[in-house]
Amino acid sequence: MVIQSTGTSRRIAPFKESVWLGVDAMFDRHPDMIFFGNGAPANDLMPLDRLKWASAQAWEDGLNQLSYGETEGYAPLRELIVRQMAAIGAPATADEIVVVNGSQEGMDIVGRTLLHEGDIVLVEGPTFPDAIRLYQSHDAEVVGMEMDKDGIVVERLAALLDRLPRTPKFIYTIPTFQNPSGTTLPLDRRHALVNLARERGILLVEDDPYSAFRYEGEPLPPLRALEPNSVYLGTFSKTLAPGLRVGWISAPSPLFGHFFAVKEVMSISNSRLTTRVAYHAAAGGFLEEHVAEAREAYRIRRDTLLAAMEEYLPPQATWVRPEGGFFVWVDLPEEIDTDVLLTKAAANGVIFLPSSWFFPDRSKRNSFRLSFSAIPVEQMAEGIRRIGEVLT
Amino acid sequence: MVIQSTGTSRRIAPFKESVWLGVDAMFDRHPDMIFFGNGAPANDLMPLDRLKWASAQAWEDGLNQLSYGETEGYAPLRELIVRQMAAIGAPATADEIVVVNGSQEGMDIVGRTLLHEGDIVLVEGPTFPDAIRLYQSHDAEVVGMEMDKDGIVVERLAALLDRLPRTPKFIYTIPTFQNPSGTTLPLDRRHALVNLARERGILLVEDDPYSAFRYEGEPLPPLRALEPNSVYLGTFSKTLAPGLRVGWISAPSPLFGHFFAVKEVMSISNSRLTTRVAYHAAAGGFLEEHVAEAREAYRIRRDTLLAAMEEYLPPQATWVRPEGGFFVWVDLPEEIDTDVLLTKAAANGVIFLPSSWFFPDRSKRNSFRLSFSAIPVEQMAEGIRRIGEVLT
Repeated sequence: MVIQSTGTSRRIAPFKESVWLGVDAMFDRHPDMIFFGNGAPANDLMPLDRLKWASAQAWEDGLNQLSYGETEGYAPLRELIVRQMAAIGAPATADEIVVVNGSQEGMDIVGRTLLHEGDIVLVEGPTFPDAIRLYQSHDAEVVGMEMDKDGIVVERLAALLDRLPRTPKFIYTIPTFQNPSGTTLPLDRRHALVNLARERGILLVEDDPYSAFRYEGEPLPPLRALEPNSVYLGTFSKTLAPGLRVGWISAPSPLFGHFFAVKEVMSISNSRLTTRVAYHAAAGGFLEEHVAEAREAYRIRRDTLLAAMEEYLPPQATWVRPEGGFFVWVDLPEEIDTDVLLTKAAANGVIFLPSSWFFPDRSKRNSFRLSFSAIPVEQMAEGIRRIGEVLT
Repeated sequence: MVIQSTGTSRRIAPFKESVWLGVDAMFDRHPDMIFFGNGAPANDLMPLDRLKWASAQAWEDGLNQLSYGETEGYAPLRELIVRQMAAIGAPATADEIVVVNGSQEGMDIVGRTLLHEGDIVLVEGPTFPDAIRLYQSHDAEVVGMEMDKDGIVVERLAALLDRLPRTPKFIYTIPTFQNPSGTTLPLDRRHALVNLARERGILLVEDDPYSAFRYEGEPLPPLRALEPNSVYLGTFSKTLAPGLRVGWISAPSPLFGHFFAVKEVMSISNSRLTTRVAYHAAAGGFLEEHVAEAREAYRIRRDTLLAAMEEYLPPQATWVRPEGGFFVWVDLPEEIDTDVLLTKAAANGVIFLPSSWFFPDRSKRNSFRLSFSAIPVEQMAEGIRRIGEVLT
């Protein structure tokens, strides 16, 4: 029997080419592969005991977590999120917060709520590949904005906007310790971006998974601090644990109402247990203490990585020292194709992510991303040495 | 400042009119409202202590649940699901199962994977309102199939198919203790439906949240037992607790691969903790014992409801005795509009769901749904008496 009716939606075409499948297949090519690909927090820096304790606390709430409800999320968690946002200068009220299944679901809800065919979304070039794929799946044309060592080159953005056939639906940006470039948009560019977006009437969607991990320099205000009419995506995936799948969208009305409605019909609510676990784990100052400790460990990883890069990478490799976050972006001479280089590197026992993954048009081939968050310090020098070997 | 770019996607138009908002607003109109609206399991029939215990067990798995991964779901849970499906005669293998955030997310993934503009989906008329809204949001035209006291009138379906401009992408059906009609498709119609779908090359999507709660009669094979090339949606929302948000899609390859890819990009995975909680709660025979106990309690609720209906509803109200599930569907004379009746009923202290909610074109107005799963038996006679009062 042949089912004739199962042709898939053209909208899921961007999902067919999973960015991970090829890399997963490379794992077996070397007995002790060193994997600079993973943007996850380190296993040993996730607060297992605290989460276990928080889980027991969550059950004190008894039956309240068992039925349908709480589409917008557990109220004490939303209040904690508001305090957390206030601590970084981002104003929000609890009734602007929708808790989601990781900020990945948040990106999807934002795209699904706002986009349809003919829409344009601006993203950093390079940016998080799943953002590209999700917005494309909602039929938008995803266009990359030029970047330099300080993130989006805002002074060139007006010219890009003038060239586009219509005003973009929104600008999606990771302004702090950007994925994958590691860059941070300086304060003057933040103001310039907010002003330009205001002038042109463009919504800003700020994704902020990494700002808690600053290793040097002064904290900068999130875009949300400068533009209350913007959308802010937050997550506990890097500060507690990604397996919990707890993130949030903060959005002023009427966007809040739209995001709420979409979340409700998509999945009714998050796991109500897990939102309580996240709350009890984070509450009482634990999150701040835990993040401060993890930050020190990640700083050491960054510094170890940068030292190894100085030692083992040839002079034609250049990079920007990231002030925080999980990533270092490495530029190579134009003639090097890092998709090809990755195959050689994997054969030599090391994996990075090639730059083509991070551009909507896959055009830039001569850079790659190193993630240092989940690599034990004792593996770093050897991993970079292996990359240096294939580069020379 | 005005953000000009925030016009929402035309695709979320079906979500604007939440079916619940109006009903929620009615709650305050009477000091002791009796609510026959909610299709949730009863709070006192959810296994709180077992879930609490299961949650502690889940942490025995330590760090394994904290990072990214398990898009398809916790392996022991998927194996348990396979055994559970085998027990009702539905063949599946663990590598056909994607665990999702409730079968609501499952419906969404099926729609998102398969539908785009121009597609047609057939549903029962009446059916679950969120199914209508989700499939419409993926740009499909949702068409209702004629039903009688035995569910879909399969012998009329071929004629409907002939009238449609193209072959539907899939048929979405709740064949057992249907929501909202309470009907169950008999075996001969199941065979006829499967044969017709085969002949026409139409995928069957079977939603099966209620079949564990049969109060009389012999179990019938799910469609999946008769047609291995069909999609099966299952859930722990009725058998354990909806607040966990754990359901599943079972689908043969290549559909499994598509559903997996869509789930991965939508939300990466379910909360990994919660999938372990569901596993430990259900395992070791507990789920079967618990369901057997709950079934007895629900049977008493059904019988109490039916007895009250016999006593208090006027002769022009007719209904089909449901052999299981959570719902009784009541038909009234054509001239009665149950949207109007609901307003009067709410003023008299009782809420039901009017039939217009359950039809894609909202055309049928003279029926309503009573849900008995979450109503204490001691409230039932009074609730039905109040409905009888506004009917006479």
